[in-house]
Amino acid sequence: MRDTIPDHGLQLRSLVTPEGRLELSLARVPTPSPGPDEVLIRVEATPINPSDIGLLFGAADMATAVQGGSAAQPVITAQVPAALMRAMAGRAGQSMPVGNEGAGTVVAAGTSPAAQALLGRRVAGLGGAMYAQYRCLPVAQCLALPEGASAAEGASCFVNPLTALGMVETMKREGHTALAHTAAASNLGQMLNRICLQDGIGLVNIVRKPEQAALLRAAGARQVVDSSAPDFLPALTDALAATGATLAFDAIGGGKLAGQILACMEAAINRQATDYSRYGSSVHKQVYLYGGLDTGPTEFSRSFGMSWGMGGWLLFPFLQKIGPAGAQALKQRVAAELKTTFASHYTQVVSLAGALQLDAIRAYGQRSTGHKFLIDPTLDAR
Amino acid sequence: MRDTIPDHGLQLRSLVTPEGRLELSLARVPTPSPGPDEVLIRVEATPINPSDIGLLFGAADMATAVQGGSAAQPVITAQVPAALMRAMAGRAGQSMPVGNEGAGTVVAAGTSPAAQALLGRRVAGLGGAMYAQYRCLPVAQCLALPEGASAAEGASCFVNPLTALGMVETMKREGHTALAHTAAASNLGQMLNRICLQDGIGLVNIVRKPEQAALLRAAGARQVVDSSAPDFLPALTDALAATGATLAFDAIGGGKLAGQILACMEAAINRQATDYSRYGSSVHKQVYLYGGLDTGPTEFSRSFGMSWGMGGWLLFPFLQKIGPAGAQALKQRVAAELKTTFASHYTQVVSLAGALQLDAIRAYGQRSTGHKFLIDPTLDAR
Repeated sequence: MRDTIPDHGLQLRSLVTPEGRLELSLARVPTPSPGPDEVLIRVEATPINPSDIGLLFGAADMATAVQGGSAAQPVITAQVPAALMRAMAGRAGQSMPVGNEGAGTVVAAGTSPAAQALLGRRVAGLGGAMYAQYRCLPVAQCLALPEGASAAEGASCFVNPLTALGMVETMKREGHTALAHTAAASNLGQMLNRICLQDGIGLVNIVRKPEQAALLRAAGARQVVDSSAPDFLPALTDALAATGATLAFDAIGGGKLAGQILACMEAAINRQATDYSRYGSSVHKQVYLYGGLDTGPTEFSRSFGMSWGMGGWLLFPFLQKIGPAGAQALKQRVAAELKTTFASHYTQVVSLAGALQLDAIRAYGQRSTGHKFLIDPTLDAR
Repeated sequence: MRDTIPDHGLQLRSLVTPEGRLELSLARVPTPSPGPDEVLIRVEATPINPSDIGLLFGAADMATAVQGGSAAQPVITAQVPAALMRAMAGRAGQSMPVGNEGAGTVVAAGTSPAAQALLGRRVAGLGGAMYAQYRCLPVAQCLALPEGASAAEGASCFVNPLTALGMVETMKREGHTALAHTAAASNLGQMLNRICLQDGIGLVNIVRKPEQAALLRAAGARQVVDSSAPDFLPALTDALAATGATLAFDAIGGGKLAGQILACMEAAINRQATDYSRYGSSVHKQVYLYGGLDTGPTEFSRSFGMSWGMGGWLLFPFLQKIGPAGAQALKQRVAAELKTTFASHYTQVVSLAGALQLDAIRAYGQRSTGHKFLIDPTLDAR
C-alpha cells in the first residue's frame, strides 16, 4: 500500500513573526513513515474548533487580514497588535502546524499488532497537526470508527465529545449532582444536552439568543435560560433551584456571566436556608471557565458567600487525571454513540486552501454554531 | 464561686431592622449556667477583627451613624442602603450577639472533669457572642492559656493564629511549596511572616504602603513587594520566581490584585519554560480570597493560561476539613508560641460601651493595622 502514498503532502502552518505579523500558509512536508506503534492517516475530515482558532490566529487582529499567494497555495497575513506580542513570545518565529483532531483512513501502519490491526481502517485521531493531507499518530491517539461511519461523522470524535463527557465526569467526581453550561447551543452544548437527557442528569442550558433557546427546547432540553431576556437572573435562579446545579462550565470567560451564575446558585441555595450566616451558604459552588468567547476581563461582585471557586478547565489535563482506563471508557462511549449523542453538524466543507480564504476566515472566525467548518484535505491538489 | 457572679451582664448586640436601620446596643442578659461539659468565662479581652466588623455593621453605611442612648448604654444607629437590604434578608429583625473570640477567667464550670479542670484558669474561647461580660462555652471551644499569660495576650488566640497556620497547612495539603499574602502587614500577616521564617517556608509579602514594607523587612521578611510602587508587577514576578510560590491568600478581594498575582505567577513559571503552549503553563496557580477589605468587584484578565483557580477560603470550614486532631495540633502550637510567633498588638483598649462611640467606630471601622481595638468588658459597670 505504501507505494500509493505521495512523498510529500500539504500541511497548514501558522507563523507569528517576531515583528508581529501572522502568516497562514500551506507547507509541502515529507510524508512521515510510521514507527512500530504508529499509523499513517490520510486525513479526510478535520473540524475547525474554537480551540484550533486560538492557535491558528494567535493574537492577530483578523480585521487586518490580507489575501496573498496563489489559489492552490494561498497565504494570509495579518497584524498582531504590539500590546499582545508579549503573549506571543513563546511561539514567535516558529511555523506551527494546527488542527487538534480529524478522521481518515490508515494507509500505512507500524509493525506492532495494534498498529497492523488498524491498516485500511477508518479512524479518528487526536494530536495536533491534523490540518494536513497525511498525519502519523501513535495508535493510542486513534479511535477505530464503527463500520460504515464516514470521515465527516468521525472528524469531531474527540474534542467536543470528550469535553462534554468530561464535564459530566467532573460533576460526579467533585460531588455535584447537576450542572449548568453556557454557550449551550454550540455543537458541544447540544451533545452535553443529549448526554444529560440520556443519563437523567439535571442541566441548565444558558444561551444568548431566543433562537438558540428554541433549538435546545426542540432537542428536548428541560431548563433553558436566555441571557438576553429581561428576566434572565430570576429565570436562571429558578432553573438552578429546580436542578440543584452547583457546578457550571462557562465557554464565554469574559464579562459578568460567571459571577452571575455563582450569585444565582447562592440565591437558589438560600431559598432553603433556615439560619442566617454572614459568610453565605456552606454549599460549594464552582464555575469552570473552559473557553474565552469573550476575551475581555472577567468581573464579579462577591455576593455569593465564601464557599465558591472559579478556575480554568481543559480537556487534556482532565484526561491525564482520570488515566488511560478512564479515558478509554469515555472514548468507547463516543464510538458507540457516534451517530446519535455525539453527532456534529457543519455548515461548510472546504479544502486546506479553501480554509485560507478571507471569506471563510470571516465566517469560521466568528466561532459561532452557525459557522462550523470542516476541512477535507483530499480536496486539495496532491 | 458562683455567688460572686451577677445574675445579669451586658452583651453587645447588632440588629438590622426590616426597614433598613442598623442598631448597635448593649443588652442586659441573664448570666447562663454551664452545662456538664461547659464553662462560664468572665470575658476580660476580646478583639475587634475584620471578621467581626462584617457582622457588627452588616451592610450599613457607617457614614450615616448617629450616637444615641446614654454613656453607659449607648445606642448607635445607621442606615442600610436599600440596594443592600436583599443581602441582609437572612438577619433582618434578629438582634445578634457579636465577637468571634476572646479570653478571660473561668468563674464557673460544669460537672465533667474537663470542665472542672478549667475552673479558675485563664482561657481563650472561640464561638461568637464574646462581646459580653460573661460567656458560656463548651470546653472544646476553649484553650487553657499558659501560666502567666494575660487576657490581652490570649484574646486573639484563635482567628488570626489559626488562619495563619491554616494557610500554611493548606499550602502543604494542596501541593504548593511557598505562598504569597496580601495585606501582609496586618497582625495576621505579621504572624504568617514569623511562622514562615521559623518553618523555612518561602513567603511573598504584598503590602500597600512603603511603611508597611519597612515594618515587615524589620521583622525579617525576605520578600516584600509594595503594590503602590511603580515597579510592582515586575517586582512581584521576581519575588514569586525566587520563592516558587504558586498559592496566594488575598485579604483585599476587590479590584485587580488577585488576577495580577495569577498573571505574575504565570510569568514567573514561564521564565523556565522551553516549549510554547497556547494554554499556558500546566502548573496550577491558586488564589484564595479570604477577606474583602475592598468590597468592590473583582476583575481579572485571563492572561495566566488555563491552570488556575480562585475561590473563597474560611477558617471554620478548613478546621472541619482537617478534623479535631488536626485542629488541636494547631491550637497547641498557638498556646506554646503565644508571646512570640502569635503575639498581637492593639492600639486601644475600650469597654463595651466605649466600642459604641462614633470616634471609636470611625477608627476600627477602617480595618487597618494601625487601628486594632481590644474590648475589655470588665471596664463596664456591672
